[in-house]
Amino acid sequence: MGVMRHSKANYGGGDRLKRQIMAARGKMPVDLLVENVRYLDVFTGQFVSGKVAVHDQFIVGIDEDYEAKEVIDGQGRYLVPGFIDSHVHLESSMMIPQRFEEAVLPCGTTSVVWDPHEIANVWGQEGIRWAIEASEGLLLDVFIMAPSCVPSTSPVMGFETSGAELLAEHLKEFVNHPRVLGLAEMMNFPGLLSGDDDIMAKLSMFAGGPRDGHCPGLSGKDLNAYGTAGICSCHESTTLEEAKEKLRKGIHVWIREGSCAKDADKLLPLINPYTSATAGLCSDDRNPLDIAEDGHINRIIDIALSQGIAPEDIFRTASFGPARNYQLMDRGAIAPGYLADMVLCQPKAGKWLNGVQIDRVFKKGRCSQRYLQDIEIRPDHSQAASSPRKNMHMPDPSPQQLRIDVSAERVKASVIGVRPGQIVTDHLRFDMEATSTGLQSDLSRDILKIAVFERHHNSGNVSVGFVHGFGLKRGAIATTVNHDSHNVIAVGASDEAIVAAVAELKRMDGGIVVYAGPGHIQSLALPIGGLMTGESPAFIAERLKTLKSLANEIGCKLEEPFLTLSFLALPVIPSLKITDRGLVDVDQFRLVTVASFAGQ
Amino acid sequence: MGVMRHSKANYGGGDRLKRQIMAARGKMPVDLLVENVRYLDVFTGQFVSGKVAVHDQFIVGIDEDYEAKEVIDGQGRYLVPGFIDSHVHLESSMMIPQRFEEAVLPCGTTSVVWDPHEIANVWGQEGIRWAIEASEGLLLDVFIMAPSCVPSTSPVMGFETSGAELLAEHLKEFVNHPRVLGLAEMMNFPGLLSGDDDIMAKLSMFAGGPRDGHCPGLSGKDLNAYGTAGICSCHESTTLEEAKEKLRKGIHVWIREGSCAKDADKLLPLINPYTSATAGLCSDDRNPLDIAEDGHINRIIDIALSQGIAPEDIFRTASFGPARNYQLMDRGAIAPGYLADMVLCQPKAGKWLNGVQIDRVFKKGRCSQRYLQDIEIRPDHSQAASSPRKNMHMPDPSPQQLRIDVSAERVKASVIGVRPGQIVTDHLRFDMEATSTGLQSDLSRDILKIAVFERHHNSGNVSVGFVHGFGLKRGAIATTVNHDSHNVIAVGASDEAIVAAVAELKRMDGGIVVYAGPGHIQSLALPIGGLMTGESPAFIAERLKTLKSLANEIGCKLEEPFLTLSFLALPVIPSLKITDRGLVDVDQFRLVTVASFAGQ
Repeated sequence: MGVMRHSKANYGGGDRLKRQIMAARGKMPVDLLVENVRYLDVFTGQFVSGKVAVHDQFIVGIDEDYEAKEVIDGQGRYLVPGFIDSHVHLESSMMIPQRFEEAVLPCGTTSVVWDPHEIANVWGQEGIRWAIEASEGLLLDVFIMAPSCVPSTSPVMGFETSGAELLAEHLKEFVNHPRVLGLAEMMNFPGLLSGDDDIMAKLSMFAGGPRDGHCPGLSGKDLNAYGTAGICSCHESTTLEEAKEKLRKGIHVWIREGSCAKDADKLLPLINPYTSATAGLCSDDRNPLDIAEDGHINRIIDIALSQGIAPEDIFRTASFGPARNYQLMDRGAIAPGYLADMVLCQPKAGKWLNGVQIDRVFKKGRCSQRYLQDIEIRPDHSQAASSPRKNMHMPDPSPQQLRIDVSAERVKASVIGVRPGQIVTDHLRFDMEATSTGLQSDLSRDILKIAVFERHHNSGNVSVGFVHGFGLKRGAIATTVNHDSHNVIAVGASDEAIVAAVAELKRMDGGIVVYAGPGHIQSLALPIGGLMTGESPAFIAERLKTLKSLANEIGCKLEEPFLTLSFLALPVIPSLKITDRGLVDVDQFRLVTVASFAGQ
Repeated sequence: MGVMRHSKANYGGGDRLKRQIMAARGKMPVDLLVENVRYLDVFTGQFVSGKVAVHDQFIVGIDEDYEAKEVIDGQGRYLVPGFIDSHVHLESSMMIPQRFEEAVLPCGTTSVVWDPHEIANVWGQEGIRWAIEASEGLLLDVFIMAPSCVPSTSPVMGFETSGAELLAEHLKEFVNHPRVLGLAEMMNFPGLLSGDDDIMAKLSMFAGGPRDGHCPGLSGKDLNAYGTAGICSCHESTTLEEAKEKLRKGIHVWIREGSCAKDADKLLPLINPYTSATAGLCSDDRNPLDIAEDGHINRIIDIALSQGIAPEDIFRTASFGPARNYQLMDRGAIAPGYLADMVLCQPKAGKWLNGVQIDRVFKKGRCSQRYLQDIEIRPDHSQAASSPRKNMHMPDPSPQQLRIDVSAERVKASVIGVRPGQIVTDHLRFDMEATSTGLQSDLSRDILKIAVFERHHNSGNVSVGFVHGFGLKRGAIATTVNHDSHNVIAVGASDEAIVAAVAELKRMDGGIVVYAGPGHIQSLALPIGGLMTGESPAFIAERLKTLKSLANEIGCKLEEPFLTLSFLALPVIPSLKITDRGLVDVDQFRLVTVASFAGQ
């Protein structure tokens, strides 16, 4: 038998089991009885009018009367299993796990599957160890997937410089950790398809568990090969047809609604009584402002309900589907022996079409609201005490680093075309004219300089290119949150503004900076790896609002300027990206120069 | 991460993975291409017209054209995942595993979950070791569940004498075997409900895996407690309502159609798009004659189809449902990365309502028909070489052992009432009159003597009672197949006939005997533990036919005389049973005497 650690009711030894059995039989009062509810039976896909008894973290009874220490009248409302975020980079919330818990528990999220590859790109193995430690002992269940692609592309390709490189041998220590479920998103699908030895070793090492995928646009024989390699999920579908082909090929579809990548609207028509057992929902990358304003996994449920998808189906997709795929047999259902992860909810304003109103969240039988009032943020993971190391290992920025010299007066320039609300970009080409200081931003056509500064090894690497779609008229934006290598990325209306923004970012040791002019700066410090802070969700949300507002003031037209910027260096997402090594044509998987002669 | 051994595509190391990826990409010819089929996509619950490529045991591609070493034209027929028998006592087929494979592979069964508690009741740990060894290296995947209840009732109750007793400590050696999935049916639900320490220890020991249930009629709070203890399945529901309550309480429902217990007709209305992911099919106990004539799991599929259940749903129930529950993530679907366990089939006479016609079975990509032609029965598991030990450790039978003396002339006798086609019995009461030799069979009212002889320890234990429903007019039937302790059980029209039948059974060292009179005997020898033989399915089926025919000749009215007889000693199935210790009132869980005074 395999040593599966998350089987139904597996937490107790004999004595605990006995007590739970006695409680279930009504021989002693249970901890909690939620009565007068319509609970979701995920096994038959129906809401059932009844009651649910909870004892010692677990559901111990349904449909029967129990003497209870606490009784809650559900007033005819709905009780559904706690939501599972099937794939998240918790770092993208900019919060430490304890703060993330504070943000998402009230949204009904009771388990998350975390690929900590952001912090791993900065700190390597140490980052994964930190992730495990910082998510220990929370009420929220945080499962870890071992990052498969750090850096996102194979170092031999030379596409980017990350803080660390993780080979199969570096992941070995995590294989047997009880909260490590398997191997995280295999973004390097070209490497997999070519039979790269290190990738084969990683796939084999985690052959006992789920191995997540990431394969935007992959189809046909290559998708067959990806599934053959044992990949069991993908959260990168952007069209319904793409999602259907993946699901048919045994690759479970996680429907994503991040802050930047929003696929839910297009993919949700996939959900029906069958697929609610084989699909799931995920946030991937979602910022605290969006979580505060629109919610987390419940946001995707809202969209589904607004499309008229049956509540039975979407609530099942949010819980049972991913629980079964990740073999978390102790959750995803409201039934005896399952963890008491439950959401008491009702249709907004009386209609499911309006979305779901979450009234109360139970995690392991505890009321999350009461729990969150009582906890203290542990100092060892908060801003003050964290991150003894410096985050900015780079020379001071200078205008010289931003020059783009060309050997002709008129050139055809490759320009990154931003698509609002997506992380894929277009590879645009513009005619440009050189000045005495090389190519410069052209505000009239919204062609802005974008630069990446290596910040892990003091290499001095800087690359410069152009981007279309930000709309800045002055100033600059710079950040250390920059997938996945998390070098400094900056976009600006002028070279001077970019330098000023990056200099400030270096001074504060990482975070996000919006520079509107001398003395006119707003920032959010992210002292933990340049990615996270121990501040509260409310504080971060407020800061982000202020930053966005200033970005808007300097002309930025994007809904999500910082997230959009932070994905422009990810060379595994089509079509044109920029890293510290230069422009990457992702479609052809090669480095390209900014400018070619105009005639070409 | 848990060390799960049956994850998708987990069989290969790096090199094999590379070859499979290359085959999937079409860079080398695949082993097999099945084209022009409608394959079942279990993830979306639809049949899809396409083709399926197989390489090195696994499905490596769908929907694409591949160069292949062998091409099979499916002629528009259906291709569905191989069937899983979710719960079987393989011993009840009377065949060794290699012969069982021969019988069920052609029926489309490609994986079985075996609880070897029959042989464990006879040989103890040694029996489980034998089961593991004898099912090693077959093409059919035989998974083992560690028997939880050997004997079926706790020895402290003194209800029966088995060949062995298995405590938690005896199961330890099996926990980490790669083919042992979890703990087999927890029949001793009263023990579980009372918090029995050994049961708690067994449940805890196998907490990492599935723990199967067996709880006929259990409901309400007790069923809540059973689910709370982590039990995740039950195959003992006999009504739709009972099955629904179990499923709602997180106890997956295996729909059973054995030779004796036939529940499919009543339970199949449970199946729909939702439950096809949470229910399964099983045979439990099915004899070779029935397998030969009506099939195995495909028999249940036939019944479902005749009820108008959608083929998508019942084929999904037969494969995907149990695969997910048992966390066998490498099977139960036709998709890349899954084992090439597939059944090529079509509606019988053009209509699904007529059932399924199985044209070809692929197991791990091999054509089962060709495989079965080529294999040789390994002598170490065949009749000749097996079972060096004797099976009959008992004194010679005598008429004195069969006397039922009573202290009054007229008594009220407790009589086991047989229900044809079920293993539950009725507790009947008849007025009877004593003769000079005590109470005797009354052929006119079909009240026959039934006796159980302990045969493991030479204890000389014999108990005698009465049964109604066999209809014998002369002769006797005796067998060593007698659940679960497998003592000798015999029913006869006279004491002399019973003695003669049991004497012959002892002489041949176990099996089944029908005695019609001096020199008029038919028998089937079962040299392996008195339960199994290495003979072929055809041989056993032919013998059973002959035996049945003779049983019929002496008056037996039952469809399944031997199976019915063999369940009359199982004291965990209501209502009245007989063991070597006496009559057991299962409803009250106590031993009772045959006769009480007529007034009582």
